[in-house]
Amino acid sequence: MRIDLLRSGTKSLPQQISETIAQRITSGLLQPGSKLPSVRVLASSLKVSQVTVSKAYADLETRGHILCSQGKGCYVAERQRNSPDTSAGWQDGYDDYLPRAQLWRNFNYSEVKYPFHLAAIHSSLLPLEPIGATMAALVQEQPELMASYGNFQGDQELREVMRRHLQSRGISLSSNDLMITSGSQQGIDLVARTFVGPGDTVYLEAPSYTGAIDVFAGRGAEMIFVPMDEHGMRVDKLTAMCDRRPPKLIYTNPTFQNPSGATMSIARRQRLLELARSYRCLIVEDDPFSDLYFHQPPPPSIKSMDAAGHVVYMKSFSKVLAPGCRIACVAAEGNILSRLIAAKSSSDLGSPLLTQRAVLPFIDRRYEAYAAKLRTALRLRKEAATMLLKQYAPAGVSWTLPEGGLNLWLQLPESPGIGKLHALAEQEGISFLPGDVCYAGDTPSRHIRLCYSQLTHEEMERGLKQFLHLLERHLRSICR
Amino acid sequence: MRIDLLRSGTKSLPQQISETIAQRITSGLLQPGSKLPSVRVLASSLKVSQVTVSKAYADLETRGHILCSQGKGCYVAERQRNSPDTSAGWQDGYDDYLPRAQLWRNFNYSEVKYPFHLAAIHSSLLPLEPIGATMAALVQEQPELMASYGNFQGDQELREVMRRHLQSRGISLSSNDLMITSGSQQGIDLVARTFVGPGDTVYLEAPSYTGAIDVFAGRGAEMIFVPMDEHGMRVDKLTAMCDRRPPKLIYTNPTFQNPSGATMSIARRQRLLELARSYRCLIVEDDPFSDLYFHQPPPPSIKSMDAAGHVVYMKSFSKVLAPGCRIACVAAEGNILSRLIAAKSSSDLGSPLLTQRAVLPFIDRRYEAYAAKLRTALRLRKEAATMLLKQYAPAGVSWTLPEGGLNLWLQLPESPGIGKLHALAEQEGISFLPGDVCYAGDTPSRHIRLCYSQLTHEEMERGLKQFLHLLERHLRSICR
Repeated sequence: MRIDLLRSGTKSLPQQISETIAQRITSGLLQPGSKLPSVRVLASSLKVSQVTVSKAYADLETRGHILCSQGKGCYVAERQRNSPDTSAGWQDGYDDYLPRAQLWRNFNYSEVKYPFHLAAIHSSLLPLEPIGATMAALVQEQPELMASYGNFQGDQELREVMRRHLQSRGISLSSNDLMITSGSQQGIDLVARTFVGPGDTVYLEAPSYTGAIDVFAGRGAEMIFVPMDEHGMRVDKLTAMCDRRPPKLIYTNPTFQNPSGATMSIARRQRLLELARSYRCLIVEDDPFSDLYFHQPPPPSIKSMDAAGHVVYMKSFSKVLAPGCRIACVAAEGNILSRLIAAKSSSDLGSPLLTQRAVLPFIDRRYEAYAAKLRTALRLRKEAATMLLKQYAPAGVSWTLPEGGLNLWLQLPESPGIGKLHALAEQEGISFLPGDVCYAGDTPSRHIRLCYSQLTHEEMERGLKQFLHLLERHLRSICR
Repeated sequence: MRIDLLRSGTKSLPQQISETIAQRITSGLLQPGSKLPSVRVLASSLKVSQVTVSKAYADLETRGHILCSQGKGCYVAERQRNSPDTSAGWQDGYDDYLPRAQLWRNFNYSEVKYPFHLAAIHSSLLPLEPIGATMAALVQEQPELMASYGNFQGDQELREVMRRHLQSRGISLSSNDLMITSGSQQGIDLVARTFVGPGDTVYLEAPSYTGAIDVFAGRGAEMIFVPMDEHGMRVDKLTAMCDRRPPKLIYTNPTFQNPSGATMSIARRQRLLELARSYRCLIVEDDPFSDLYFHQPPPPSIKSMDAAGHVVYMKSFSKVLAPGCRIACVAAEGNILSRLIAAKSSSDLGSPLLTQRAVLPFIDRRYEAYAAKLRTALRLRKEAATMLLKQYAPAGVSWTLPEGGLNLWLQLPESPGIGKLHALAEQEGISFLPGDVCYAGDTPSRHIRLCYSQLTHEEMERGLKQFLHLLERHLRSICR
């Protein structure tokens, strides 16, 4: 088993080994019943002492992840929600560079009646008809688009439309400074594979987006989580943390943060940018939600203040237009962008040209009016959801009141038994995102994330009510 | 500058440093006029002696990649085909993990009159009308497809169609053993990011596919190239090479190989599989061309003989159906596949559902008849191209006679000045693929690859004739 150990890291070696193995187990990458390498073998392959590995295994056993028995060795414990492992014998020993895959584990539901886990917008709210009409016209009038690889960087016409869009939000760039990706997830992945490697220090908000954590973990980065309050990342604390470990990259989702909903103040945005300048590092500003405000528009993006190319800005149009088209835009300058384009080329030779052209006229001419309507619809949903929370949430449960975005972030009472809750909810056809996947370690979190926009208004109300009743019964049962 | 040095590698340290920097320069990742780090600084950051770096720089200077002057340091030499560098000062020093990007460099032409560089099929030969009709019907009848992320692994219905397709080619798997990717390029990339890391030994054919070399280089692999003959990879030589350096992975394109056109014999396929079994390693069998044979169907795929999950099989439908839809299929079993799906999730949350469904009915019902017609059209083109070669190719130029696929592999006389030829051709609106990008080092190659199917028949004939005249003038000029 391969584990990237940071010998000068902030965590002890047994802790790093135990956390990485726990992540592989909770991600489902290590299946129940799989045998772990012996202490001797793992110690030798990681070049650490057997005491170190023994400590890690003991910790894993204490936390119920593995079962060890004298003479037989250690095995991954049985859990719920796992499919039987049918791998050929040799495959288990074939090393990988995939320490964690919580996105895969937690978002790959086939059918759930009440999917609250995925931050998405219900199809009835999306502009599928005009985008579909454009697509139908394209394939009939310009079938040759289907025959073309297009430009690795993304279609020039779409980039010009994106440029104007960003310009209207205070970000002045040329269309050459933009790249089209298959969703922001790919944008984050491209930045990580290009600029982050083993031991590089990446700062993120605590909590942060699961998909970003998966990606940085896959690069062997040392992820450090920065505390937040209602004004977003505590940049003052980050500044002190950077004194000890200078940043290679800072990942932030400053507006209606995923999952917490908090929005970074303008003063902190400025200070964060100054920090990046002084450390000559990159900020990844992931911004899927800034158009989805309920009352006041959020502060200007960090990118709009960036004069020296320190911010890689990611604007997803996937969630708000058509997730099935997977279109996002990455804005960066100079050889930061050109290296990202080179990485995009070897990842997939460019995103499909057809889907790029299908969303183009809508973004160009109808997006602003649509966004205004969408904001109202989302606000009504959010209000209905918080109303239900006030009415039915069990005592001890609190939540943020987001000013925009798609998610509620609930804090449950101490030791809420989220694993059990998750399984119970699944039995009733309800899904949610357990908060612990929004952190890098596998420290249990008291939080869960619920998305209020993935269902129709009525279904959301019905499902949320049912979930809150279930939550009440669950919390009562574990109090006894 | 970051360079993955293999201290127990087969190449000397100065050679590794010099080759990596040369790759960055020829890929355009290091722009003309950029200053290289000083010998002292690079030696210290790579933890090697200054003598080692000086040797590497001297070698780079000898080969014309850089210019050094006492007191001023070393700069990347001026070359053709480069855009001005507008990077902010700090960005040049921001380290990356991107040692090479020949795909980006060589395939990103915006407009060329005679594009012979890209292995693709002209739109007039592709089934764009039926695929477009399906797409138009889908967006009107099932607009909700645009609203869905779909399954990370790929659409279940499309996987079932792919399963039947593979079954008809002797590959018996369940649809759960298949994953849909955005082209085979993404499939190769997913395998590399999941299973290959710094220092892992990857064997490839010499020459091999540029895009695969880029990907493995990006993972810091030690790539070792195995000689070929007209029956494909010399598996006997590979066997001997593996004795010295056991393989982590073997990448092969056994059928109408890209770029050489050679096809691996069935005996070698069997021996290669035995080798993978004995080393408990993976074979990546990249198979975009096996349906594009001119006379006899090629030998069965290696995957069809694989009983223990050693082969990750990649079947691209992108080239032969609609590159703008970017659909390929990856077949693998057990936890090899599940880890690849996990990697796919963090790369891009899955390929667009819409384009998956758009190609589905065509693959299901009309693919075989279409492939038969396509074979005839391609054979006629190949025959026309080889006819022109016989008639107009200058003395000393030879070529393979491929039995299928899209490419011709030309061998030019000694020291053919391919860089100069490339620039001259570009002035006349003609592109080709220089053979040296099909190897990992930057050893000059005498080969070039020409694709005969990317143009109409008439354009191909006109362009090829013009190119051969140009080649003749060029070779005559350098002989003087």
